[in-house]
Amino acid sequence: MTSPPARIGASIDEIDTPALVVDLDAFEHNLAKLAEFARKSGVRLRPHAKTHKCPAIALKQIALGAVGQCCQKVGEAEALVRGGVKDVLVSNQIVGIHKLRRLAALAKDASVSVCFDSAEQVEATGAVASDFGVTLGALVEIEVGMQRCGVLPGAPARDLAKLIGATGGLKFRGLQAYYGTAQHLATYAERQQAIQRAAEAVRQTVEALKQDGIACELVTGAGTGTYEFEGTSGLWNELQAGSYVFMDTDYARIGGKTSNRYTDFEHSLFVLATVMSVPAADRAIVDAGLKSYSAEKGAPWVHGLEDVEQVGISDEHGKLKLGPKAKRLKLGDKVMLIPGHCDPTVNLHDWYVGVRQGRVEALWPIAARGASN
Amino acid sequence: MTSPPARIGASIDEIDTPALVVDLDAFEHNLAKLAEFARKSGVRLRPHAKTHKCPAIALKQIALGAVGQCCQKVGEAEALVRGGVKDVLVSNQIVGIHKLRRLAALAKDASVSVCFDSAEQVEATGAVASDFGVTLGALVEIEVGMQRCGVLPGAPARDLAKLIGATGGLKFRGLQAYYGTAQHLATYAERQQAIQRAAEAVRQTVEALKQDGIACELVTGAGTGTYEFEGTSGLWNELQAGSYVFMDTDYARIGGKTSNRYTDFEHSLFVLATVMSVPAADRAIVDAGLKSYSAEKGAPWVHGLEDVEQVGISDEHGKLKLGPKAKRLKLGDKVMLIPGHCDPTVNLHDWYVGVRQGRVEALWPIAARGASN
Repeated sequence: MTSPPARIGASIDEIDTPALVVDLDAFEHNLAKLAEFARKSGVRLRPHAKTHKCPAIALKQIALGAVGQCCQKVGEAEALVRGGVKDVLVSNQIVGIHKLRRLAALAKDASVSVCFDSAEQVEATGAVASDFGVTLGALVEIEVGMQRCGVLPGAPARDLAKLIGATGGLKFRGLQAYYGTAQHLATYAERQQAIQRAAEAVRQTVEALKQDGIACELVTGAGTGTYEFEGTSGLWNELQAGSYVFMDTDYARIGGKTSNRYTDFEHSLFVLATVMSVPAADRAIVDAGLKSYSAEKGAPWVHGLEDVEQVGISDEHGKLKLGPKAKRLKLGDKVMLIPGHCDPTVNLHDWYVGVRQGRVEALWPIAARGASN
Repeated sequence: MTSPPARIGASIDEIDTPALVVDLDAFEHNLAKLAEFARKSGVRLRPHAKTHKCPAIALKQIALGAVGQCCQKVGEAEALVRGGVKDVLVSNQIVGIHKLRRLAALAKDASVSVCFDSAEQVEATGAVASDFGVTLGALVEIEVGMQRCGVLPGAPARDLAKLIGATGGLKFRGLQAYYGTAQHLATYAERQQAIQRAAEAVRQTVEALKQDGIACELVTGAGTGTYEFEGTSGLWNELQAGSYVFMDTDYARIGGKTSNRYTDFEHSLFVLATVMSVPAADRAIVDAGLKSYSAEKGAPWVHGLEDVEQVGISDEHGKLKLGPKAKRLKLGDKVMLIPGHCDPTVNLHDWYVGVRQGRVEALWPIAARGASN
């Protein structure tokens, strides 16, 4: 782990760059807004830690009413439990004896659940949990549109739930129903329709379970782009949104309910960079590139500078084009960049630098950085 | 830093995934091939550590004749010097008093050089070096085609060299002349022509220096896509290639001299993944996504499996499409992925797992992972 890029109390100009900066006012606004939505809608909130990878943030979400956290990887679950989170759902399939043993061991210290989409994994996981003398919560993941993991809705999901019910070391909790590719559909109406289709798959599965007398305590899923639809569906009773804490340009590009911009949440995550070269009047080079933000969604947006656009990305450089209305930049100037995709950007850094009114107020270790195993 | 994903002596099936695997035979072939080219061409080799970020690999390159390493960041230089490298060139501009102090402090333990493209930075850096009682090597970076950092060739470069010569704490070493965007031009002929144009800029600058009686000991630059042209130009006398140790799909896509594939070096870098879900006959999901490889150059290639293609990428999943000729994959199967871009992929991992003939033979810490400051 690298050293923190600033000290508490420092000004933004004193932060060593590149650094991952969190605007604490915007961040707290986002946390409160989704917590309030969940409370009003009568659904549980289990924010996704794959976005922030940080127990300090998890505990803030839980303090505002979240029931726990979800995550994708055993390594993330370990970081969360070590950091004080008592209820973790691995919203994913876990394969391999060593990973299953780590998962079972975690259940000694916390409530731990995991997803299934095959009988083989139910049996392997139940055996390990029994061996460790623990019970793991078990969800059946159903295919609701994204064609990734998951069994088909209805009878196949019911059959897997029955197998879980008959397997020692596991307790059937309900359904994982997450439609990832719906999150970024361009318009509000498209996202709404996608979740309506997903809801049919959920309804059909809950019905199939009921016919066999299997209670489905939990239907969990949803993300930052669709949470409103799942949250008011009467079917899902737990929301897994993650990106809402930070936002990114990929979410900023989708349409909202009443405008062509999605503005439910504010940008709170920035990569802070420094101007390191000004070789021409219309060009400035900053010291942050592909190793400081994820670029598969394109170049970051330049925040708060008129007529300045990032037009090139190298491993450790960003090329800014200054238009006719831009103020000239000079060596040492700080530039705030909004990353294209928050989750993989966070995974590049070891520290959040929390800033309020221009002053560093928090340094939070990204404890699960790199914990992809 | 996460734990190593394997033990020495383990089989590939025993490696915890996702893991960054190096095929040691291919890797050693690549190291030897460029070392031999440099020796035969009578030019120095200073491989770029921004690719591997690993002192263990740097020392292997130096054992084969490399004069040292180059890197982009002070944090990388620190990791290299701590790991035993005695000669480091930061092939980049360094801005800010704290970074300059770290750079000067390093010069107590190693020969350290850095690049300049502004008088302001020459003065700031010279003052810090003098304060620390050290001399930093100083190169003038010239613009040779990529429109990133660098002063214009000829008189502007000469003027900066003169300023360096008159500045305490700095010693003028020569020119940094790197044409990054030429590395991936589609054909051999295009790359050759690009370096011919860059050579004109170098020639003009060396001539301008000579007219003022300034010796230009060093002209350093080149990358994996063009090293042959700089290396035989009679102008450059030091090569900075980095990616040649690993290769990636972005380099594999460019044309070679005699075929439409660039085959100077072999693929030695892989992201090892595990099949975690097989929800349909033509689909398998592996446990490595955007947090295990950089995807701004597209999805990774699936290595060694007929008619299998990666068609989707999530943060922690890869979706494989199995064509009619593909062998079915089952839970737990290992899949080798060739990343699109090696440098930012390496920066996601803490360990290299070196494999030879199916067995883990080396575990090398990626000491400069995340060292972007």
